[in-house]
Amino acid sequence: MSRIAYVNGRYRDIRDASVNIEDRGYQFSDGVYEVCEVRGGKIVDLPRHMTRLQRSLRELQIAMPMQLTSLEAVIHEVTRRNRVTYGIVYLQVTRGVARRDHAFPAQAVRPAVVVTARSLNFDKNQETAARGIGVITIPENRWPRVDIKSVALLPNVLAKQQAREKGAYEAWFVDSDGHVTEGASSNAWIVTGDGKVVTRSADQGILAGVTRAVLRDVIASLQMSLEERPFTPAEAYGAAEAFVTASSQIVMPVVTIDSRPVADGKPGPVATRLREQFHRFSAFS
Amino acid sequence: MSRIAYVNGRYRDIRDASVNIEDRGYQFSDGVYEVCEVRGGKIVDLPRHMTRLQRSLRELQIAMPMQLTSLEAVIHEVTRRNRVTYGIVYLQVTRGVARRDHAFPAQAVRPAVVVTARSLNFDKNQETAARGIGVITIPENRWPRVDIKSVALLPNVLAKQQAREKGAYEAWFVDSDGHVTEGASSNAWIVTGDGKVVTRSADQGILAGVTRAVLRDVIASLQMSLEERPFTPAEAYGAAEAFVTASSQIVMPVVTIDSRPVADGKPGPVATRLREQFHRFSAFS
Repeated sequence: MSRIAYVNGRYRDIRDASVNIEDRGYQFSDGVYEVCEVRGGKIVDLPRHMTRLQRSLRELQIAMPMQLTSLEAVIHEVTRRNRVTYGIVYLQVTRGVARRDHAFPAQAVRPAVVVTARSLNFDKNQETAARGIGVITIPENRWPRVDIKSVALLPNVLAKQQAREKGAYEAWFVDSDGHVTEGASSNAWIVTGDGKVVTRSADQGILAGVTRAVLRDVIASLQMSLEERPFTPAEAYGAAEAFVTASSQIVMPVVTIDSRPVADGKPGPVATRLREQFHRFSAFS
Repeated sequence: MSRIAYVNGRYRDIRDASVNIEDRGYQFSDGVYEVCEVRGGKIVDLPRHMTRLQRSLRELQIAMPMQLTSLEAVIHEVTRRNRVTYGIVYLQVTRGVARRDHAFPAQAVRPAVVVTARSLNFDKNQETAARGIGVITIPENRWPRVDIKSVALLPNVLAKQQAREKGAYEAWFVDSDGHVTEGASSNAWIVTGDGKVVTRSADQGILAGVTRAVLRDVIASLQMSLEERPFTPAEAYGAAEAFVTASSQIVMPVVTIDSRPVADGKPGPVATRLREQFHRFSAFS
């Protein structure tokens, strides 16, 4: 089956789905995106993603490209046309097409919208979670506005590639104070020896992850204790557990950090339980 | 006359010139670019731009999309087809099209190439230079790898927009040590009271500007004295002159910094002379 993409009002075979070369997303990374999990054919936590999308757009003074309900309808339609029951849907909004000039176009242009969806292999993801993943740590080198979910992802690309080359799956950025900020495409978590779940506060130079936010509710409901504070790689090396969160992975156990096993090098009970229980607070639409 | 662009092997009307939505330039800002001046229908300093392009590509492990001589031929052909005698030619190379995944594609993909050209109004640029431009200073917030001329330009976009909103033309980034790094799309220069031309060294967190490099030769040939060192906004406020360099502007006098006039608020003799003499060391091809 060929994949279908929505691009600026039309549903196209993805091979023919294109944007103008003067789309500011292409020339200036002047745009934002969202990735939602699809489960049972439903979009997981769509309202939260739409709220964050609107915030990102507002921060860049890009107008919403269409009514929120219409955008949600497109997301559902792209998911349906690609027959995704389990997978992800990707949404990108850029400032639109204008003759190349750094500053915003003097005449307002229509923001560009792209939506794609694809199936993921559920069993394979479960196997990965049962095995756990490796992460490496690297110096933070992104700009400070990572709270905006922009497509200016080149540092993240290089970080992920570096992880891949070292046989790991994810890279955790470490800021100049020596604390982990977040992963190249995930939030970073550890579990302390006395069972506290630790993650950096969302107002400290990280993206306010949707999965991260939902997991806080799950943690509270399970009466686990949560500490929102920075942690160092050294604390993570010695932690009882570690994991990452992202829409495409939910809760993914981390079993090595910089090639050192975390505890016994196997997914821990807290991460495993949080993964199992994750969707109890998710909104499906 | 409609504008013509070269896109991945074809010359197209720019309105129909498009790239796939999964081009990594669009989803990840995973690409680089160059802008060359066109003068008398010739490309100014093309070899230097091609050398820098190859360096940027190497840093990102993107292959050259075609033989250098073929790429140069495309640049000339796009310039010719757009009948540009004075203006700029723009070249963008991205890693290519692949299903969205941060790390480099496991199977090598063909890098994507876009080339456009457009005429600029020579008289209008001369008038701007005769009047001089305003700059503002803002905190540096780009990633440290600005030596790579990548399309991850969102911070530059926001900086330029901020300048525009304050009635200025350019924004100078100021690093955490309080020194000017460079402009959002130019290198920054001042002239001291005793006639020394000052600009930051190219190995200190700035792009190695082609215009900057050529100007160093011009300065030497005119037996002016050059100091490559950082300077603060305060030193710039009190400087005898200030100016910026970029391929599209050559040497452009700066007459206000943060709304304060530089000296008498008029373009100074050094900047004016450097602008006039600039092309004596340029290569035209």
